[in-house]
Amino acid sequence: MTVSRIKLGSQGPEFSRFVAGFWRALDWNKSDQDMLTFIEQNIELGITTMDHADIYGQYQCEAAFGRALKLNPELRSKIELVSKCGIKPAFDCTPDRYVNHYDTTMQHILYSVEQSLQNLGTEQLDLLLIHRPDPLMNADEVAEAFAKLQQSGKVKHFGVSNFSASQFSLLQSRLDFELVTNQIEISPLNMQSLHDGSLDYCQQHNIAPMAWSCLAGGDIFTAQTEQAIRLREVLVRISKELGADNMDQVIYAWLLALPVQVLPIIGSGRIERSRTTVLSEHIKLDRQQWFSIWQASMGHSVP
Amino acid sequence: MTVSRIKLGSQGPEFSRFVAGFWRALDWNKSDQDMLTFIEQNIELGITTMDHADIYGQYQCEAAFGRALKLNPELRSKIELVSKCGIKPAFDCTPDRYVNHYDTTMQHILYSVEQSLQNLGTEQLDLLLIHRPDPLMNADEVAEAFAKLQQSGKVKHFGVSNFSASQFSLLQSRLDFELVTNQIEISPLNMQSLHDGSLDYCQQHNIAPMAWSCLAGGDIFTAQTEQAIRLREVLVRISKELGADNMDQVIYAWLLALPVQVLPIIGSGRIERSRTTVLSEHIKLDRQQWFSIWQASMGHSVP
Amino acid sequence: MTVSRIKLGSQGPEFSRFVAGFWRALDWNKSDQDMLTFIEQNIELGITTMDHADIYGQYQCEAAFGRALKLNPELRSKIELVSKCGIKPAFDCTPDRYVNHYDTTMQHILYSVEQSLQNLGTEQLDLLLIHRPDPLMNADEVAEAFAKLQQSGKVKHFGVSNFSASQFSLLQSRLDFELVTNQIEISPLNMQSLHDGSLDYCQQHNIAPMAWSCLAGGDIFTAQTEQAIRLREVLVRISKELGADNMDQVIYAWLLALPVQVLPIIGSGRIERSRTTVLSEHIKLDRQQWFSIWQASMGHSVP
Repeated sequence: MTVSRIKLGSQGPEFSRFVAGFWRALDWNKSDQDMLTFIEQNIELGITTMDHADIYGQYQCEAAFGRALKLNPELRSKIELVSKCGIKPAFDCTPDRYVNHYDTTMQHILYSVEQSLQNLGTEQLDLLLIHRPDPLMNADEVAEAFAKLQQSGKVKHFGVSNFSASQFSLLQSRLDFELVTNQIEISPLNMQSLHDGSLDYCQQHNIAPMAWSCLAGGDIFTAQTEQAIRLREVLVRISKELGADNMDQVIYAWLLALPVQVLPIIGSGRIERSRTTVLSEHIKLDRQQWFSIWQASMGHSVP
Repeated sequence: MTVSRIKLGSQGPEFSRFVAGFWRALDWNKSDQDMLTFIEQNIELGITTMDHADIYGQYQCEAAFGRALKLNPELRSKIELVSKCGIKPAFDCTPDRYVNHYDTTMQHILYSVEQSLQNLGTEQLDLLLIHRPDPLMNADEVAEAFAKLQQSGKVKHFGVSNFSASQFSLLQSRLDFELVTNQIEISPLNMQSLHDGSLDYCQQHNIAPMAWSCLAGGDIFTAQTEQAIRLREVLVRISKELGADNMDQVIYAWLLALPVQVLPIIGSGRIERSRTTVLSEHIKLDRQQWFSIWQASMGHSVP
Repeated sequence: MTVSRIKLGSQGPEFSRFVAGFWRALDWNKSDQDMLTFIEQNIELGITTMDHADIYGQYQCEAAFGRALKLNPELRSKIELVSKCGIKPAFDCTPDRYVNHYDTTMQHILYSVEQSLQNLGTEQLDLLLIHRPDPLMNADEVAEAFAKLQQSGKVKHFGVSNFSASQFSLLQSRLDFELVTNQIEISPLNMQSLHDGSLDYCQQHNIAPMAWSCLAGGDIFTAQTEQAIRLREVLVRISKELGADNMDQVIYAWLLALPVQVLPIIGSGRIERSRTTVLSEHIKLDRQQWFSIWQASMGHSVP
């Protein structure tokens, strides 16, 4: 039993339905060998798409992944590498920065991709995303940077992250090819994209969004807000009804039920978590279960 | 003197400017004969468009209407029947449902239309609306259901209700024909659609919206909120200025003054109410009167 | 050293990057000769675009400008005249009005332009704007009025002010020519247009917005809100870093850094203000400086 695969857009890459996210990879304290094992175990599960960003782990996560990959270079052809650029945080390791900011200039995009390629130890990214909508984004300039990266073969496909419909539409208007995804936050604790037109736009334009923070960074399990308490009560009930292993599976099944093809990112470094998570593809919520979660999140019934 | 008629869309049905709404029809406690009389009196007034939904009166309203229609089947050709589907409330009569939810699957749409046709005692709906935007709506599936219903002749035209501009645009993108209306809430107590782009979208795409809850369910006349008190003061003043019979007429005239052709739904079962309401077509607010109502609703002058 | 020039739209007028605004012109208490001098001094600086509206100064500003222009009629060919219509305020001088309202009927638009032409003492406006989005705007009627004004040569180009993206899109859909601008409020104290899709829309459609109230009517310098206090602290710091003459220059440089070509309106009647303001074209904020102002306005870092 392996996870299904999704083709993004009409020309887009084929990704695994679940994506392994390396945002917190440094916190996992894995040796290079352990990281390699983790990657291999993901591939065995069918999770071949690996989500990175230049800035993850204060610019260290890509390199950690790269060192692991170097131990078994043949793996590169079995995975799809996603990275992002455009944020310049004021990290300890970047003393020249005193304020978190964005940079979507050609110069920074090209520089960032070079760094990502080098750190990951690969010659091509399968997908590059603009990490955040930048109020200073010159869409023509980003388009030119994308074109350069495509022509040089350094990046195969392009997308965005956390963009609104109007921001997506703006950048798309300057491109000869399709942006293949918008990576956005979706969880039962954060349903904004269901109501602000973001997912309507995705469905209309056949865009499969990637979803980050599907478990709201763990808040669904631990937060003592009324919303989180209501949600846990419903998630526990539905877990039992469906014979699920845990609440996580119900949450992921809830996401997969959306009419757009969501690709959830799994942020855990424990392969057991991934193993149970991917089983959620085979869990089908009925509409009453799905709307019970919606209702628990909103605190009121649908109108 | 009879109400005017509006052609919805370029191919759309011709409806009466005012629509009789049967949401509360069970509360009217009419015998079948009285209901028939009420329908006939509406037709005499020129109100030929009759607004239903599968769920009204806990699924009983359409049948009540149908029994009346059966007493004079020739009336069918003199009226336009609108119904809706997509909501599955947890009514007492639906013990298998424990949560209000939506269902816009092909199966449910087709099933619901069959029920509406049978209950109304007709072979064709003039217009079918998706009752509420469903976060689980698969636009392709709805489009396929609509196509089937059109081909079989069971439904002539299609539209939506309570959809945002992005939701309308999504569903329209999958159809070969025009959605002919968006039935939305508009009243001096709820002017959201005037400011959130919904009516801009309607005007741009030449969509005549139907308006529900034009009197805010009576709140305009009874609520003790500052907004309602402000509104009544202004409505009374304008009623006098225009020699209107009551505040209702001023409210409907205010709606009819919008640059989109709004078709207000009258929700009353008393034909005298309809008689005075339709006279509002001949009441013209000047711009100061119109904006006095806007200002009373908002609590501040236009900027 | 003179201010640069911007071509609005593909066919649009060529305007000076900074625009002289005559909203408060009556408060300046200038004689006709002083007003003429002020206009000439603006032209010397390269500020050739002059922003008016029918209603400014309770309908007196255009006439004051016109009297000055009459003293040196040759200036007309050296400037671009912008005016607006569509607001009908309840001024002391308009005793027939008891409520502020809008009027975008053909009749009022044509009447208002006639008045503006007469008051300004010119035969043609370079640009006419609809001053505010009017919920009663019939886009077909406005389009017809614009066409008449264009054909008669009374107005060369058309635009809007304070319109949302959907309102702009609506009116544009009825026109054979491009709306060349949307005049909107942009300042570090009011960044709404950066986040609500307005500027995304402008960039996508290559619309150069004019910006009013760039200094928030002086609130940036005087308000005791936490936001204003935070902003002043940052603006003072950046002024020093860049060797700017004052905070104003930093604010204008911040606006000019946006990826759309903003044309700021200078509302002062003191030519020294304009002289220092136009120097901001040569001040380049780096991204950390730009985002420091963003952060001070929002009260939090970018996500």
